[in-house]
Amino acid sequence: MNIVLLEPDQIDSAEWCITSPHQLQHLQQHVQLNVGDTLRVGVRNGQRYLTEVLSSSEQQIIVKQIQVDVAPEKLPVHLILALPRPKVLRRIIMDAVTLGVERISLIHSYRVDKSYWQTPFLTKLNDYVTLGLEQAGDTIEPEIQLYKRFKPFVEDVLPTLITEQEPAYVAHPYAAQPMPHAIQHGCSVIIGPEGGFIPYEVDLLQKNGCQAMCLGNRILRTETAVSHILGRLFI
Amino acid sequence: MNIVLLEPDQIDSAEWCITSPHQLQHLQQHVQLNVGDTLRVGVRNGQRYLTEVLSSSEQQIIVKQIQVDVAPEKLPVHLILALPRPKVLRRIIMDAVTLGVERISLIHSYRVDKSYWQTPFLTKLNDYVTLGLEQAGDTIEPEIQLYKRFKPFVEDVLPTLITEQEPAYVAHPYAAQPMPHAIQHGCSVIIGPEGGFIPYEVDLLQKNGCQAMCLGNRILRTETAVSHILGRLFI
Repeated sequence: MNIVLLEPDQIDSAEWCITSPHQLQHLQQHVQLNVGDTLRVGVRNGQRYLTEVLSSSEQQIIVKQIQVDVAPEKLPVHLILALPRPKVLRRIIMDAVTLGVERISLIHSYRVDKSYWQTPFLTKLNDYVTLGLEQAGDTIEPEIQLYKRFKPFVEDVLPTLITEQEPAYVAHPYAAQPMPHAIQHGCSVIIGPEGGFIPYEVDLLQKNGCQAMCLGNRILRTETAVSHILGRLFI
Repeated sequence: MNIVLLEPDQIDSAEWCITSPHQLQHLQQHVQLNVGDTLRVGVRNGQRYLTEVLSSSEQQIIVKQIQVDVAPEKLPVHLILALPRPKVLRRIIMDAVTLGVERISLIHSYRVDKSYWQTPFLTKLNDYVTLGLEQAGDTIEPEIQLYKRFKPFVEDVLPTLITEQEPAYVAHPYAAQPMPHAIQHGCSVIIGPEGGFIPYEVDLLQKNGCQAMCLGNRILRTETAVSHILGRLFI
């Protein structure tokens, strides 16, 4: 946690009060704040601030703003992921948010188990976003959308996202072209499920304007692929 | 799992027998092999093969070699990590191996909790390596070394690794230089603990020939940083 993220209604008065259990626990375990110390605080979808600690107890930490601070820029990327296993969903969303992805779409695919769409973890996306923002020191939430049907997403939504300046790349182990690197423009990046997209899906993605790009001859887990591809695309 | 990794003594006869519970369980759950199907098999520190399934039961799967296959090349990188929390050690080693790191050193640092060196997970590094190799379709184990003291490692070992052709980069949020990308040479990459290296440690690393390189103004978790940096350095 590199900033404490507050909700907009928590900064209505001059003194701001940190009461969330996960935030208090982290600060008590890792930071050991004293009165007068500075603390970085962000406001969800608002600004980032340097604050000063006015009081600190087990139940709450009170701070006041001393300076407006600059939040990091987003990456101009729309990450489109076949819905991952519930167990890794938290980590992947958190990583994508930490790395600064602007927009995330979770889509269905043949090899996505239908039960994944019923997982209670999908109701906690907001918590995972918060963890990612707090890790990165960012305040702006990415837009997250769920598409439970593959074909309508690929045929109706995807073509509206692709322009000559902002292409869409699907990571595909058997593509001939390598994934580009150090690009200077926005893009969509599409990453399949464990086991990969089936050939019909890769075909449909390509027919609708996606470019299939390979990542070398090692097959990565989805969670590894997300940070690996973003590290390669944007420098 | 994209290959089944066998030990050298398992391929002494013409028919090879898969009996490891984690391998059988994975194949039964995800692959549903039938007699006559092909299966990729690797031999630890040996070659990779295409095999044919001769018989398949709950207790064992028997295959025979039909073709020698090419394992992916390694990345020419020595990954030097402050020993991570036990909980994430498995994932980080697995990812580093999947991505093809040639050599891994786990080192102490001021912000590494001393108790981490006592974790039973450190006795399971070999299992994590196996998982990484099976994910990548690789057979060659990286060399892994543990250094429980920071200063002797940095002063005595690190300088022997650095040459003009093979520099060492330490990821450091406050460095002025950005981490290089798409390099055509080998290198060492040094990644600190949660909370980062302390200034004394960064100084000592630099005095001993390391270049401090930043990764932008987002602070990444170690596990995210590993695949992100490797994606950026090597294309």
